[in-house]
This record gives sequence, structure tokens and C-alpha cells, in this order.
Amino acid sequence: PAGRVLLVGAGPGDPDLLTLKALRALQSADVILHDNLVAPAILELARREVRRVAVGKIGHGPSVLQEDINDLLVSLAREGKTVVRLKSGDPGIFGRAGEEIAACREAGIPVTIVPGITSAQGAAASLGLSLTDRAHAQRLQFITGHGRDGRLPASIRWCAVADPTVTTVVYMPRRTARAFTDAAMVNGLSPETPAVAVAWATRDNEARISGTAATIAERLATLPEGAPVILIIGEASRLDSAAGTHVLPQ
Amino acid sequence: PAGRVLLVGAGPGDPDLLTLKALRALQSADVILHDNLVAPAILELARREVRRVAVGKIGHGPSVLQEDINDLLVSLAREGKTVVRLKSGDPGIFGRAGEEIAACREAGIPVTIVPGITSAQGAAASLGLSLTDRAHAQRLQFITGHGRDGRLPASIRWCAVADPTVTTVVYMPRRTARAFTDAAMVNGLSPETPAVAVAWATRDNEARISGTAATIAERLATLPEGAPVILIIGEASRLDSAAGTHVLPQ
Repeated sequence: PAGRVLLVGAGPGDPDLLTLKALRALQSADVILHDNLVAPAILELARREVRRVAVGKIGHGPSVLQEDINDLLVSLAREGKTVVRLKSGDPGIFGRAGEEIAACREAGIPVTIVPGITSAQGAAASLGLSLTDRAHAQRLQFITGHGRDGRLPASIRWCAVADPTVTTVVYMPRRTARAFTDAAMVNGLSPETPAVAVAWATRDNEARISGTAATIAERLATLPEGAPVILIIGEASRLDSAAGTHVLPQ
Repeated sequence: PAGRVLLVGAGPGDPDLLTLKALRALQSADVILHDNLVAPAILELARREVRRVAVGKIGHGPSVLQEDINDLLVSLAREGKTVVRLKSGDPGIFGRAGEEIAACREAGIPVTIVPGITSAQGAAASLGLSLTDRAHAQRLQFITGHGRDGRLPASIRWCAVADPTVTTVVYMPRRTARAFTDAAMVNGLSPETPAVAVAWATRDNEARISGTAATIAERLATLPEGAPVILIIGEASRLDSAAGTHVLPQ
């Protein structure tokens, strides 16, 4: 049989946030190559006899090289396997899907992408926020805090960040949050702009801290070590903006 | 019994792109208030006896006023009903969730948000694109082409758009695409920047056109009338960028 590769978004953590299509993909897999951040409860949704290979990073520790992942995808598919590459969030949003798609295409392997809920969406839902609340935001942007060399990408246009009508979500903000918020404020972002950081969004152990553009970087250190974190900055991230009750967690 | 409101993302169109949590919410509903854009196949996933109320816009025709939707949510929940407010895509991304959340909170009604795959994610998956391909994009932004008065939001920061390292997705671009791309190019976006527009993303009748920043606005008119469309602009939207096969549709 002809092998194939499915790049599948596992969503932010809560297994209920998988799509039906992702669940079906998991259940069709012969082999699953997964990030370490994918929740065990999600891996358990696959068939029992499936082969599982962890290929993701653990914190800043050792990880499988991207080229080795690409080679493994191609060689397993060439053996006729249905290979699921399971990634936290959405493969198309800071999931490095581009490199894996290109490797499969070059090898003539059919690739299907199954999108997933990205952690910004999961965090917003669990905080009870609209990322584009009409009163506050006409634009929503996702930026990686972690460029190829681990530092803030040099390409960031600060005028795009220092905008009172944008909601900015920084992925992988931990190492660079101070540099990020400092540069944003130097370029005109109000230090009073609300900000919230969420660790393990949508999991049972979700943790949050709130603050402002001026204070949030320091507070990030209080979130659990090793946890995936996202940082949301902008008027739309203000908690308790409406009088009354909090959004219920479930 | 105490009533409640669930704001649920129906995803971009393909029923398989519902989350498990959204499916469960649909099946728990006593009443569903839904946008007209929600696919019939998704509404069919609810219980047979559920009451369904269409409250969305049809094209630029008449629609239920937002305040009336808010009032209906609150009054049905006060009757003890489990009310699902079903929205295309993700309620937190140009879904006007903010106003409905605020109305429920003011009335003391518990609100749960269930995120959904937004059409940009669905379109990218079906095009076989990474929205943040490392070689091309360190930032991803979603902008509405349709402000409160139906025109381009006056708040758009053009420096954020005229950036060769961003992927820009314009929601509801049809009426304003020419103004949008013209302003982006005047502000420095290369006219050669790849662009692709997708109608009815992830549905069986999905239609696409590609072009450049200079040509895409005119080509939008060739997409089916009345269809929801998104416009993706940026190097990451270049189709056939990798040698070899296309991504398979399923």
C-alpha cells in the first residue's frame, strides 16, 4: 500500500479540543511522531498497537534534528505506513510544518494537513476573552519570541506591535519577554497596556498571570518551569473587563 | 435548572473540523442560535428535537440586530435552557463574541467559550501551506476588511502590512480589497507579493484564486457571489513553492 503523511494539530492540550478529523487521523495511524508537549491523554486516543515516537524538544534540552524528523517521515511513508506527525496547536502556526511539507513533496509522498486549535485560541476561550473584541482590536497578530537562534526575530516591525488597536500573542515568550516588552514600549506601546500570560493553556494544570506591558515580563518567571507559555498583550486581554461573573472553566 | 450560554466555534465549514467539545456542546443544546454561514451538515449533528434559530447575516441583506441576539441569549438562558450560540470559525476571532459575553455577564448568565478552527487555518491546511513558514514569515496577522461602517478600519497601521516577513489574512475582504492592497502597496508592500483568496474554505465547494498584491483584488470578483472569502497575502501564501506534488485535498 502507498504510504502517506498527515501533519495533525493536537490543539492546545485539552483532548476535547481535538477536531473530529484529527481524532480520525490518530485512529488511522500506523506510526505517530509526536512532540513532547502533546498531552498523554491525546496519545491514548490512538490505536493501542500504534508505534509512537517522541521527536520534540524537552525545554531547551536535546531534541531530534529537524532533518532527522523529515527523513523519518519520508522513510516510514516509503515503507507504506500511514504516518501521523502530531504537533501541539496548529501545524500551520509556528509548527514548522513548512519544512516537513517540503521534504515530503520532494520525496513524492502525499501530505495532508489537519489544522488544530492553536494555544492562543485555547487560552482566550479559557480566559473568556475575544481576541478581536470590536471595542478594542481590529487586528490580531501572532509573533514568535524565539527566532532560529533563540533570540527575538530581528525582523519584528515594532510599529506593528506599538499599536493600541492590536492584540499581540507572543509564542515561546519566556526567554525574550523582557526584550520584547521593552522594545514595544520604547516604540510607543503604553506601559499600562493589559497583558496576560498562560501556561499549559486548556489543560487541568493551566496557570495564568496578568499584568501590564511594563510588569508582565518579570511575572513570567512565576509560571511553572518547562511549561509552554503564551503571552497576550493588548486592551482585549484585560480580564474582568465586564462587570459580573467570570467565565466558567467548563 | 439553571440556564447557560455556550459560544461555540463551528469551524470553517467541513464538519470534521469541529472539535470534540463543540460536538458535545451541540448535542447538549436545547436551543441553537446560529449564523447563516454555518453548514447544514453541522447543524444536523445536534439533537433532532433541538430548536434552531438563524440569526446571522445573509450577504449584505437584513440581519438580526446584535442587541436582539444578546437579549435572546439572555432570555432563553433565564428560562433554564442550555443555549448554544454557534458561529462560523472561532468565536474569539472576528466572531463578535465580546458583545455576547458582556451581555451574558451583565445578566449573571454563565458563559463558556468553545474555540473553533478559524477559516485562515482551514484554508491554509487545504492549500497545503504553513502560515508561518520559517523561511518567509515570523509574524501572522488577521485583519478585518469590514469595520463597523463596512469600510476598511481607519486604525490599520500600514507599516504592519507593508512588511515582507508577515503573512496577512484579511477577513471579509470583498468590498475593500482594492483599497486594502492599494494602501499596502503605497506604503511599500511589493506588488509582486503572492496572494491567494479562498471562498468556502474546507467545504466541498471550496474555490480559490491566486495572484499577487497587485492583481488579487480584481480577481476576487470571480469567486462565487455571497460566499465567505478570506484573502491571504505574503510570501508564505505562494502556491507550488516546493517542487513536486500538490497537497491532497483529503
